[in-house]
Formats: sequence, C-alpha cells, structure tokens
Amino acid sequence: MKLASTISEMKSLLGKSLGSVGFVPTMGYLHGGHLTLVRQARAENEVVIVSIFVNPTQFGPKEDFKAYPRDPERDLAMLEGEETDVVFMPSSEEMYPQNYNSWVTVDKITDILEGNYRPGHFKGVTTVVAKLFNIVEPNKAYFGQKDYQQATVIKKMVSDLNMNLEVVVAPTVRGKDGLAMSSRNVYLNTQERQAATVLFKALTLAQQLHGNGQNNAGHIRQEMTSLISKEPLAKIEYVSIADAETLEDLATIDRPAVASLAVRFGKTRLIDNVILEPTHG
Amino acid sequence: MKLASTISEMKSLLGKSLGSVGFVPTMGYLHGGHLTLVRQARAENEVVIVSIFVNPTQFGPKEDFKAYPRDPERDLAMLEGEETDVVFMPSSEEMYPQNYNSWVTVDKITDILEGNYRPGHFKGVTTVVAKLFNIVEPNKAYFGQKDYQQATVIKKMVSDLNMNLEVVVAPTVRGKDGLAMSSRNVYLNTQERQAATVLFKALTLAQQLHGNGQNNAGHIRQEMTSLISKEPLAKIEYVSIADAETLEDLATIDRPAVASLAVRFGKTRLIDNVILEPTHG
Repeated sequence: MKLASTISEMKSLLGKSLGSVGFVPTMGYLHGGHLTLVRQARAENEVVIVSIFVNPTQFGPKEDFKAYPRDPERDLAMLEGEETDVVFMPSSEEMYPQNYNSWVTVDKITDILEGNYRPGHFKGVTTVVAKLFNIVEPNKAYFGQKDYQQATVIKKMVSDLNMNLEVVVAPTVRGKDGLAMSSRNVYLNTQERQAATVLFKALTLAQQLHGNGQNNAGHIRQEMTSLISKEPLAKIEYVSIADAETLEDLATIDRPAVASLAVRFGKTRLIDNVILEPTHG
Repeated sequence: MKLASTISEMKSLLGKSLGSVGFVPTMGYLHGGHLTLVRQARAENEVVIVSIFVNPTQFGPKEDFKAYPRDPERDLAMLEGEETDVVFMPSSEEMYPQNYNSWVTVDKITDILEGNYRPGHFKGVTTVVAKLFNIVEPNKAYFGQKDYQQATVIKKMVSDLNMNLEVVVAPTVRGKDGLAMSSRNVYLNTQERQAATVLFKALTLAQQLHGNGQNNAGHIRQEMTSLISKEPLAKIEYVSIADAETLEDLATIDRPAVASLAVRFGKTRLIDNVILEPTHG
C-alpha cells in the first residue's frame, strides 16, 4: 500500500497504474460501511484507491468540522488489511491553496432535505468530489446508500458534467440493532445510542406499511413521525417520502421512492434512509 | 476528418485515439485567430479535436445568442484544410438536456471587467469548457489571448479543480489595420470597422507610454480613454490596466500587467488587450 499526501504524488502514482481504478472517497474514521465499499472496489477493479480527507468546505460554520473524529493510523491499518493499493491523504492547504476560488454546484436537488438543514454542504461535497475525481481519475467511484442524497447529487453532477466514471452506490451497513454505521455514531452516549435504534424501526415501519399496500405518503410519514416522537431523546429535523431520483416530496407513492430522515440525539445529528420499491399487483 | 455530433460518439472516437490530444474549443464562424490555434494544436499533438458550439449559457438574455454568426459548412471546410482529426459539433439539447442543473464557477476574478458588464457570462463559459474537457479529455487546450480574461479564468479553474490538462494561450491575430480578429467583426459596417481600429491604436499607445517609463496606470488609462473618445462611433465600457494574473486594477505598474478594453461600435461590442511587460533599468 502506498501513501500519497500531495496531489502531484497521487497523480504520479496514477501514471504508473495499469487497469481500471476503483475509488472510495472517505473522511476517514473508517467503519464497516467504508470497508464494504473498499471490498467491492477491490472485487471490481485492478487498482483500489481510497482517499481520507475531512473536507472543511462541506461543514457549516456551526457544524462539527473540528470535532469530527480522526484516527489516520487505525484507518491506514484497516485499509492495508483490505489490500488497498493507494491511500490519498492530503492536507487542507493542499486541496484548498491560498486564493482558491472554484466551485462545482448542482442546483435544485441540493436545496431540499440535507441541503435545507445544511446550507452550502453540497457545494463543498460536489467541489471536493470533482477535485478528487480529477486527481484520482477513477473508472468507478463507490458511495454508501446511507448518504442517499449525497450519492444522488454526485450522480447528477457526473451526468451533467460528462465526467468519465461510473458512480456505484452500495447498501447501507447496519449494526445488529439496525443502526446505520456512521463515523458520527462515536458521539453518542449509551442512552443516545440505544435511542437511535428508533430510526431504523421507523424506516422498517415505512417499508412494512408500503409493502402492505399503503401508498399514501402523508400517512406513512405520520406513522414514522409518531413512532420517533415516542423516543424522548430524539429531535426530528425531517422525515421525508420522496421521489427516488429528484428527492421531491411525494403525496402518493406511485414511483420508486425513498424514505429518509434526519434526527438529532443530543448534539449528534444522524441520517438514514430506505428505498420503497414500487408495489405490484 | 470525423464529425461527432453526440457526446457518446465523441467519447467513442476518443477511445480509439492514440497519443496526445490537442483541443481547440470554438463557437464556430472561424477566422484566422482560430486557425492559428488549430495549427499550433496540430504542431504539438498527435490528435487535433476542434469543437463548434455556440454556448447558450454564456450569453445574457439581452445579448446576441440568436444573432451570433454561424456557418458550419464553411467552418468544416476550413478545419479539413488544417488536418483536424475530429470536429465535435453538438446540439444545445445534447449539451444541456432537460433538468440540466450543474455548474462550474470561478469566484472573484469573474466579477470584474467582462464579468461586470456580462453577469453570468463566465459561469456559462467555465461550465461548458469543463464539460468539453470531460468529453474530449485533451492534454492541451488552446485559447486566444484576445479573450484574455476568459483564458485567465479557465487557467484558474483548471488549477483549482486539478484538471488534467495544460491551457495554452496563443497571441491575438490582427488584421493589417490592427483590429483583432473576432467572429463579431462581421456585425460592423464599413464606418464602424474603420472606427474600431482606434482600439489597437489605444493599446499600442499604452505599450509606448509604458515602454517609455510611464508606470502611472491612471495616466495611461487617461491617455487611452482620451484617444478612443476622439472617435465619435466608439462608446467605452471600460479601459483597464490590471494585474496580469488577478486582473485587479493597478495604480502603479509594478508587476506584469494587462491593458484591456471593451468598446461598443453601434450594436457591436468589441474587446481587446495587450500585455504590458515589466520595464527594466
């Protein structure tokens, strides 16, 4: 495994690489969800590149950029264990030098849900991902379904800007209690961690109701909201049933849909989602 | 010479190409300036690709998108004569399909000069150029110095977003009377065309004054403005002496500078510029 900490180092390593490149961009503090992406990249490509970069431009001024958990030594050991070929781990100054001024934005789909609660977040995400794509030149890039809107925004960016790669979205990896793996789970205390299991229960409820023929999105949202509200530590930001492609709210589930939510437990903000498949018959 | 009119056609032609790719993006209605770029691309690369696309997103609502001169047959014949390998000539719908929503922007340097008089112009330029770079994947891309700010903005975008190509800026090509070649010169009537020669006279005056040791930018601007104002058909938008890299106005020419201007002759808006080299001794 090789470690590149500058862009020119990364590009020069790439020049020597042969065959298809699978790329997993991460903010580090790796968990089972990341490792699943790395394993899929390993299975599908000749070269596997993972980036570790806590991207300052996707955090709001009041968000957890400084507190975001970091443990590069542990990350590198885990990536070595997955036969990663190259880890790209740049500094903030390397990615955003003085007088940095260029941005990639996706309109409309970034205004809602996460974009509504985290203004500017997706501008930071699309910009850093566009930069990483240019630096790594992957054939395939792997993202987790847990950040469903992020993956959707990136697919839209890749399509609109004619980028030369395939975006692969892999299923969310969950603990035994259903909680989606997230680097931010480390913020939760024992009580909050227990309380947070209500998220997957609410999403599972949505799938059950829809599976039983319920197509009224408002009704499902209400049932989810009611379930989460029984948990005193949970503070809902949004519960959404939306078109799986545009992420616009649905009144009736008459096409592929995604149930997604953002809920705070103490200082920790968690997001999760499930796909609601169209029902037949 | 091959003609590609869809993005997938263009990308598939590229897949078969061997060696370095030189790319000249144009809006068509080619003149000697464009052909100089094509010749330089031909001399420096194994494959030469030229795009012809009148990009709607870089024209303001009151600008000349519809009137912009077009003559694809003549253009193709000229490019055939220069041994161009591939011409990429997409439709607007191919480049901006329904629900298109992604943009590349460069801040700050795009607010001044052309950006000040043509709000949104550079957002359209950087977006279409980023798309074309992804579609053509050139090693070198060629731009004319006549659009000095455009070339500077594109260099900044390429640097900030870590794009994998070199931006080459080639000297402005002029008529015998000094008028910079531009597709928009076709709009000028005989009187206006004669009047427009004042632009290069003013730029030459700036070079002379600076060459004779004048470093007071305000003084040079005043002399240029005064000369152009003697031409009754000329309506000045701006006359600028600026830092050659940031394009910020200079009071004293104590670093590489560019003298640039935008002047209207009737309905026709012309721009031009010259570099003011630092004086020694």
